[in-house]
Amino acid sequence: MKSWIETPTNSDFTLYNIPFGIIKHNNKKVVATIIGNTVINLHALYNTGLLSTTYGLHATLFANDFLNDFIAEGKAITNAVRTRIIELFNEINTEHRELLQTCLLPVNEVQNCMPVRIGDYTDFFSSIDHATNTGMMFRDPANALLPNWKHMPVGYHGRSSSIAESGINFHRPKGQSKADDQTMPIFGACKTLDFELEMGFIIGKPTALGDSITTANADEHIFGFCLFNDWSARDIQKWEYVPLGPFLGKNFFSSISPWIVTIEALAPFRVQSYEQTPQVLPYLAFEGNNNFDVNLQVFIQPENSTEKCVSESNFKYMYWNVNQQLAHHTVNGCNVNVGDMMASGTISGPEPTSYGSMLEISWGGKRSITMNDGTERKFIQDNDTVIMRGYASKNGIRVGFGEVKNKVLAAK
Amino acid sequence: MKSWIETPTNSDFTLYNIPFGIIKHNNKKVVATIIGNTVINLHALYNTGLLSTTYGLHATLFANDFLNDFIAEGKAITNAVRTRIIELFNEINTEHRELLQTCLLPVNEVQNCMPVRIGDYTDFFSSIDHATNTGMMFRDPANALLPNWKHMPVGYHGRSSSIAESGINFHRPKGQSKADDQTMPIFGACKTLDFELEMGFIIGKPTALGDSITTANADEHIFGFCLFNDWSARDIQKWEYVPLGPFLGKNFFSSISPWIVTIEALAPFRVQSYEQTPQVLPYLAFEGNNNFDVNLQVFIQPENSTEKCVSESNFKYMYWNVNQQLAHHTVNGCNVNVGDMMASGTISGPEPTSYGSMLEISWGGKRSITMNDGTERKFIQDNDTVIMRGYASKNGIRVGFGEVKNKVLAAK
Repeated sequence: MKSWIETPTNSDFTLYNIPFGIIKHNNKKVVATIIGNTVINLHALYNTGLLSTTYGLHATLFANDFLNDFIAEGKAITNAVRTRIIELFNEINTEHRELLQTCLLPVNEVQNCMPVRIGDYTDFFSSIDHATNTGMMFRDPANALLPNWKHMPVGYHGRSSSIAESGINFHRPKGQSKADDQTMPIFGACKTLDFELEMGFIIGKPTALGDSITTANADEHIFGFCLFNDWSARDIQKWEYVPLGPFLGKNFFSSISPWIVTIEALAPFRVQSYEQTPQVLPYLAFEGNNNFDVNLQVFIQPENSTEKCVSESNFKYMYWNVNQQLAHHTVNGCNVNVGDMMASGTISGPEPTSYGSMLEISWGGKRSITMNDGTERKFIQDNDTVIMRGYASKNGIRVGFGEVKNKVLAAK
Repeated sequence: MKSWIETPTNSDFTLYNIPFGIIKHNNKKVVATIIGNTVINLHALYNTGLLSTTYGLHATLFANDFLNDFIAEGKAITNAVRTRIIELFNEINTEHRELLQTCLLPVNEVQNCMPVRIGDYTDFFSSIDHATNTGMMFRDPANALLPNWKHMPVGYHGRSSSIAESGINFHRPKGQSKADDQTMPIFGACKTLDFELEMGFIIGKPTALGDSITTANADEHIFGFCLFNDWSARDIQKWEYVPLGPFLGKNFFSSISPWIVTIEALAPFRVQSYEQTPQVLPYLAFEGNNNFDVNLQVFIQPENSTEKCVSESNFKYMYWNVNQQLAHHTVNGCNVNVGDMMASGTISGPEPTSYGSMLEISWGGKRSITMNDGTERKFIQDNDTVIMRGYASKNGIRVGFGEVKNKVLAAK
């Protein structure tokens, strides 16, 4: 299956993908998708009449600052729109091409915006290798996992307001930290700024307060996925986090890739989930392949140098899958809304080359990695750009996420 | 200063108060205020023309599901509206009374709704007596406060979606817990359901990502206050909270009083803040009286019985004041939005009669308190109603919050 829109080899945005995002064009925000290096303005496509009116669509779904209203229409609508786009832009369809051309924009002429107005944001801690690595570093190497870790997908609430899109730069955060050999904290710029390689997903179907999602129906509540960089200030986090968890060490900035890849587009890349021992409680039991084989990479690009790959991980390394995360999150009656975001927690694999944070890559600052310009990194320095990329590929089908790329500016 | 609207003795809603809320009347939500037992429909008042158009007001600010748009106009506008309402309903004003009467509704004929569409919600942990009590119970009585506690207003992100208004009932949450003498967790209804007596405040003025609020300008960013019940499932919280903080033990339900009392209305009740030793870092230093003398009470009403007062506390017992909370929250560049909510954390005073949670009142379940029907409580039982009330009073001026009242139904 190929599009008549030119799609470069190894493009993340094949006709199998058709993700959704928000672009700014002529100073107006609209819903869009992308094939190859060509963005499709879905408001313009709606106006052609070719998207069909059989779904009960209306213009405000597409002339909109965010995807929320579109997503809230439900999967019957959003999947029908995606299917129709695949049909219209399939190379076997020769009709309407002149009209369809009027909806196309070169990717470098549009600005990607935040795709979703995020309501609540939750971050999980679901990679066993990441949890083990941090436990070994900070606690007891022989008992790295805390007693609750294998019984539930541990998570915490994060800050929505400071989640921004790829391309936004930010200043190194300032805050309190305390050296182990000191009794008093100091205030200053974070010394150990880090990325965390994560995947995020967007809630597509709400629940009422008091209701719960099961592992069996969790898929219905997930609209789609994006890359998520959970920027972390390790020194600030270390001093503040007991007993109520991470706060200022995380909430200064988080960033996401701008195209939301639907859970339906990822269906071909489902793989077996982790075998979980000890057996989980019944509400966390699940059937089927709920993990996703998505290759993930992190690059650091120092100022005036080239990208250096520092991590090659995979979304399939999650011990707790997204179905279990949603079942756990709502088992107490906590309600979810359209546009809520959930993130996976740092995704590390078993090998050091697959660790998803500098904390693990440098093993708490004990090892350096060498950049292409010869400089060394234990953590992220000012003017470094961090880039995360991700894609799934199987039997000639490729579905990718593009990238999330942000530059760290010096502290204000 | 008195209103020509009848105001019962000891009413929370005197002419000095004029809080803002959202009511549903004739199946339509509008912005409203209250004097005595009389609600004033501010959309109707706007339509009379008497609210004056000099502020650049428009009808959609008042015919609105939430206060956010009104609050976003800024204090110059919202305070001018409040001042004008005080003027119109002051007994010394005899003009327009017939027209003004058309805007009035008996409080028992309207339904209070959520006043604000909450963006992000943060909960602090700022009462030294509460922090000390929990530290004594769970950790070391000789070193009850953790090392960071006196250096920063410790806080964590909470869940916005499950914050509801007074009058909403909810089901006892279910979840995982683990007994100390067991190795495996069990799943079931929470056994140790608790309230937490808190005050919340609403952000009125946003900041941009990367900017910080100072203790000196924090007041400008605070629209107003309400009572906040941070319902807690102690057994769930205990098993889940290490290392990332409270999650399902809190996010099943929180509740607020429906009228937002402006920070300006609380000005007469400002009192000296805590003397802080050791000295705080410069960004947390402050001047002036940033605590508020607000009497707070908690009542438990068993089914078919009467209210029993179980706590008498005061907002002035906060070690960390709201100015410090905002300065800390944003010192790393974390941005705030109009409608964000911050809560104080449980407000306990030094005496056992002023403890703000059953965890402290029953000292971890070791002591019972007797209800008016002779039954005993260590924690909250099914069909119990918990009511919190709060008011400030000085020199004959009374400004109060009304109540937040919710009933616990059996687990689903």
